[in-house]
Amino acid sequence: MRDVHVGIIGLGNVGTGSLTILTENAAQLAQKLGFRLIVSAVCSRTAKSRALPAGLEAALVTEDWREVVAHPDVEIVAELIGGTTAAREIVEAAIAAGKAVVTANKELIALEGAALWRQAAARGVQLAIEASVCGGIPIHGVLREGIAADRLEAFYGILNGTSNYILSEIEQYNSEFDAVLAEAQRLGYAEADPTADVDGFDARSKLALLASLAFGVELTPSDIPTSGIRPITPVDFRYAAQLGCTIRLVCSAEATPAGLFLAVRPALIPKDAILASVRGAYNAVWTRGAYGADTFYYGKGAGPTPTGVAVVSDLMRVARDLRSGASGRVSPFGFTGPKPAKPRPIGEQQRAWYLRFRVQDRPGIIASLSAILAQHEISIDAVLQLPKEDWRNLPFVITVESTSGMRISRALEQMSGLDFMVEPPLAMPLEPGL
Amino acid sequence: MRDVHVGIIGLGNVGTGSLTILTENAAQLAQKLGFRLIVSAVCSRTAKSRALPAGLEAALVTEDWREVVAHPDVEIVAELIGGTTAAREIVEAAIAAGKAVVTANKELIALEGAALWRQAAARGVQLAIEASVCGGIPIHGVLREGIAADRLEAFYGILNGTSNYILSEIEQYNSEFDAVLAEAQRLGYAEADPTADVDGFDARSKLALLASLAFGVELTPSDIPTSGIRPITPVDFRYAAQLGCTIRLVCSAEATPAGLFLAVRPALIPKDAILASVRGAYNAVWTRGAYGADTFYYGKGAGPTPTGVAVVSDLMRVARDLRSGASGRVSPFGFTGPKPAKPRPIGEQQRAWYLRFRVQDRPGIIASLSAILAQHEISIDAVLQLPKEDWRNLPFVITVESTSGMRISRALEQMSGLDFMVEPPLAMPLEPGL
Repeated sequence: MRDVHVGIIGLGNVGTGSLTILTENAAQLAQKLGFRLIVSAVCSRTAKSRALPAGLEAALVTEDWREVVAHPDVEIVAELIGGTTAAREIVEAAIAAGKAVVTANKELIALEGAALWRQAAARGVQLAIEASVCGGIPIHGVLREGIAADRLEAFYGILNGTSNYILSEIEQYNSEFDAVLAEAQRLGYAEADPTADVDGFDARSKLALLASLAFGVELTPSDIPTSGIRPITPVDFRYAAQLGCTIRLVCSAEATPAGLFLAVRPALIPKDAILASVRGAYNAVWTRGAYGADTFYYGKGAGPTPTGVAVVSDLMRVARDLRSGASGRVSPFGFTGPKPAKPRPIGEQQRAWYLRFRVQDRPGIIASLSAILAQHEISIDAVLQLPKEDWRNLPFVITVESTSGMRISRALEQMSGLDFMVEPPLAMPLEPGL
Repeated sequence: MRDVHVGIIGLGNVGTGSLTILTENAAQLAQKLGFRLIVSAVCSRTAKSRALPAGLEAALVTEDWREVVAHPDVEIVAELIGGTTAAREIVEAAIAAGKAVVTANKELIALEGAALWRQAAARGVQLAIEASVCGGIPIHGVLREGIAADRLEAFYGILNGTSNYILSEIEQYNSEFDAVLAEAQRLGYAEADPTADVDGFDARSKLALLASLAFGVELTPSDIPTSGIRPITPVDFRYAAQLGCTIRLVCSAEATPAGLFLAVRPALIPKDAILASVRGAYNAVWTRGAYGADTFYYGKGAGPTPTGVAVVSDLMRVARDLRSGASGRVSPFGFTGPKPAKPRPIGEQQRAWYLRFRVQDRPGIIASLSAILAQHEISIDAVLQLPKEDWRNLPFVITVESTSGMRISRALEQMSGLDFMVEPPLAMPLEPGL
């Protein structure tokens, strides 16, 4: 069969990892495909001044992405520069030129994915987005095709490797958040500005994307209630352990008759749940389907070659489509015509809760707090207090039976005015059924 | 787009589960595909005398599979009867009639898959086999497309739910194999004749199939060294725990410069490896790639609707191919023209080993055994003996440093003649790097 020529735009981590695979692993790729994948054009601001891997001697090397898109041999353009402005221009230009597009761009797809797919479908070209979320896990393909026949009821993800690494370190070494973050930054596991990772915004974009695929809706990331891991302290892991649980930054989607609940937040999960075994900078996804019951997927969340596997596997898939005459075979979102949707207010969701307080100890504290909980019709399940803590900043925990997040918020608001509170209470749901 | 009509042959567990999904979930399937999947013909020996789900009123119901294959509307035939004789005839007849085939038939595909694919490719029709292994995990799609760009170095699977259930029960309740098996049979988790499950033959067929996909080779199941779980006793779990490990029936494939090592055997795996968290009647696959590092996939191994998800997801995929004009788009084996291959002799593989002995205790036993090990140049790592055991049938364990299975076999053979041995020693590898 005739070879397929591709153009690579962007030689950062992902571009470099993809080129490594396309050159080093070229023989096995050809053995799988029955034809070769040839890199005919490469664009980066530094491409001309750096050494490219062997096998690219004949490729056009340029600093102008338009030359890649316009290259007559190139049938598939890989957009690997990230960001949203130039990247969007590249993707739209490639689609307009009738070329298939593979992208690793999470922000672009979370914000503009549905609109770009409509352009691609209208032009009859493929848009492939596996690398945009959970680089090392082929989760798009799984949701779009692998378990497409199932009707998903719940989806839980650990989608941010940096937060998961930080939580794992706090748990293992009993260290404070700030110290672990500083060390992670020193080691290059966290960005100088860690907000996107530790405050949950990166995970939120990913959840929006994967929930679109899982439930056939078009979601706006900023509609998803999001909180990060900054308030988590070593003492929370010790209390969680007393409850047979650990703590993870959980991206959850729950389909109910009332609608879709979505959230990104730290949560307690049972230690023997398979999601609890995800430690360090890994990503994972757990699903529950009406027919297939529970399934679980795990791998590196990022990294040059793990994400490169996703990029090049998408190039292979699109190349197969091209050579078999089937461009635009399936929407990258799994559903035809997903509809814009708003999640249900998360305050309506029922959960058991972990409430951690820090107080200046004196008699009557439990009495005050339990009176407020009773007033909001919230039933206490257990009160936990570890020994040997400082009475001036005493951490203790109340767990309560399943109730709505709205009731919890109202009770906590009322509690926050109490004079013995050293800091605002921390509330985390206990995620059931994992 | 024009609807796609399918024919279902076989209404056992998998056929019934598939029909449930095709009828109950029809609206969501159509929303995903952009057209409907319509069941136009159903064949089973009991189809005429049983109630079929709503939505099949217009379907042809027959006891003759030839009528399904010949039905003019049917574009895809799902072969769900199992076995190899009639099933092969059905698949070949459907291919000859120019119809795509979806099958859940492990034995047939393990034995005849490559030959059937050659027929399908020659006729330009699709052959889809996701449901033939690990019903609830879309592992074929993952290996064939999701991580197709990676070059796999190792593959570990827990591929037999019955054995995994039995091992989990022995571990959790400290029960003997025979008692757990009898209970599993009473509960319907194990067959009256449990040989295929507990002696590893079912897992062996599945490993042959998945290793073909992962490494692009055509394997004969009977070439894979296989041993089952009958010799595992509660005491083995206690010794394994002392080593920080648990025991699973592990299907392993390791690509080395010397060739491909394949085995099905009980093995020790670290308790904190994610594969160790697979308990009960689940299946799981762990891979290590040259580029994507480690990934992991988990779900129900069998069951009417989990396997039905695999069948119907394959029907959707093939239907999309048909409507986009791309029949025969990709070999179900991931590689074009996989070549027949023999695994390397497993005795050449290097592993650390767990050796469990049962002896009639007297002075000099360790001296005899360690002399034999030394003679075969095998280094002892540790000697473990739990307290309070019967001296007439004393179990104890020697772990040895990494060495070839061949040396271990020779040493064990020499040991088996010793007069203090109550039964032949049990050797299990410690699987590293999971």
